[in-house]
Amino acid sequence: MNNALGIDIGGTKISYAVIDNNGEIKNEVKKISTPKTKDEIYNALKNIIAEFEDNIDFVAIATAGAVNNENTGVIGSTANLPSGYKDIDFSTLSKKIVFIENDANCAAWAEYKIGASKGMKNSVMLTLGTGVGGGIIVNGKLLKGKSGAAGEMHFIMSRKNERHCTCGSYDCFEAYASGNGLKKTAEIVTDNPDITTYDVIELAGNNDEKSIEALKIWQNDIMLGIVGLANIFDPDCVVLSGSMEKFVNTEEIEKKVNSLIVTTPVRVLHAKAGNYSGMIGAVLLANELI
Amino acid sequence: MNNALGIDIGGTKISYAVIDNNGEIKNEVKKISTPKTKDEIYNALKNIIAEFEDNIDFVAIATAGAVNNENTGVIGSTANLPSGYKDIDFSTLSKKIVFIENDANCAAWAEYKIGASKGMKNSVMLTLGTGVGGGIIVNGKLLKGKSGAAGEMHFIMSRKNERHCTCGSYDCFEAYASGNGLKKTAEIVTDNPDITTYDVIELAGNNDEKSIEALKIWQNDIMLGIVGLANIFDPDCVVLSGSMEKFVNTEEIEKKVNSLIVTTPVRVLHAKAGNYSGMIGAVLLANELI
Repeated sequence: MNNALGIDIGGTKISYAVIDNNGEIKNEVKKISTPKTKDEIYNALKNIIAEFEDNIDFVAIATAGAVNNENTGVIGSTANLPSGYKDIDFSTLSKKIVFIENDANCAAWAEYKIGASKGMKNSVMLTLGTGVGGGIIVNGKLLKGKSGAAGEMHFIMSRKNERHCTCGSYDCFEAYASGNGLKKTAEIVTDNPDITTYDVIELAGNNDEKSIEALKIWQNDIMLGIVGLANIFDPDCVVLSGSMEKFVNTEEIEKKVNSLIVTTPVRVLHAKAGNYSGMIGAVLLANELI
Repeated sequence: MNNALGIDIGGTKISYAVIDNNGEIKNEVKKISTPKTKDEIYNALKNIIAEFEDNIDFVAIATAGAVNNENTGVIGSTANLPSGYKDIDFSTLSKKIVFIENDANCAAWAEYKIGASKGMKNSVMLTLGTGVGGGIIVNGKLLKGKSGAAGEMHFIMSRKNERHCTCGSYDCFEAYASGNGLKKTAEIVTDNPDITTYDVIELAGNNDEKSIEALKIWQNDIMLGIVGLANIFDPDCVVLSGSMEKFVNTEEIEKKVNSLIVTTPVRVLHAKAGNYSGMIGAVLLANELI
């Protein structure tokens, strides 16, 4: 049994814990606020790792942003992290090996190893949060593409430049299926530009018809995106994770998806690997790849 | 050097030739019309194979329709082939091994081995014909999915049920990017429900403004679909093949795609493996897998 230090670097928080090679967290998960500059992030990571370094076999980091195919560095810029983040040399953070992978890819891997898609060699995971993340497993391997950036859920839902997307383009799946997408849909349905994602959820819980309608349209958009992914990948399952996934009815989505695809029936499942699936998946993946 | 009999089974024609393990066609390609029933197709294949059987090492068939992961049979129904086609037991056609794979997948493999995407381990091939076919290569392997049906280019371009698709659903990429999609787009632009795909091409060649506009919209729709595929797969390249690909400007598409994706730059290329890339790809793929 070996132990690793698992770290999850997000735009708001950095979380960390010692995790064993079964994906079990061995102590309490600790958190700090993500510092505002690249150098402060580097120093914070260095301090965290120094505390555990002598009692672990390696460091595994789940990070926002695309990670190269060597699992050593971030490529390109990352919306929620300071500019220059991609220039961090992670290998110098520890005398042990430092493995890094994109957080959504790590979460998808955790679902495959110990969660909802356990044992299913072909799966698509969608993280429905403020935005939408994606992690895709093809024949038991993470889909990385030529440079490591694969799995971005920016495919269009409209040809008519209706809705701006965080990526700078228009009408991506993310702009409809995310928490922000639900807000945008609700703005249109309720004719209220100030409605928040939280308002929609609360109002729908109080049987507000327009909020319920907005939620239905949002769920249908998620379903339509899954149809495309199921036709492209013919996966065993699509796993939904993230803060927004509890508001979708996976059974309804699964039924509709299977009535529309030209490939073979697919399961649509709630994630099961928990809130720390990022750092857990990073450790489980590093266990196989380093 | 071994030789195989390559066969391409389409809705209209069955083509065949002896092909070596470099993908070179060793004799003239012969063609027959595709018979109208499953039993007639079976008997025609049996006769073709009997003619070559003693002088080849195996039979490799590129076929319309999805093919299982064992490369032994067709799964599900195939729009352009008679019902019952999927029940054909291909293994009984010859005393030699009979390998089968989907025709678009075979063509993608031929491009990867001897054509436009030669040596590029991550590629997406789109066959733009009457419909749209797809073949995807991930890390040097064909993307097949759980049952072999992966690579279907049915992902939506609109949430508003604007245009019926051959798959029974609405607004799939195929309904916009295919030859039929061009006709539909031209119907709207020219306000002429009787315009054909051929008319659009001919009129555009004679500087008809509306036909040129229809072609531009069609090309833009192809571009938008490629953006999504490039974000999902981060491929080295997207290869365009099929009877319609000569009417798109790959340089224009490549430039626009690279201005819109969040992944890393992708090439957009014309196919190079020729009209017989299906049967050639079947032989080259069988060479590696059997």
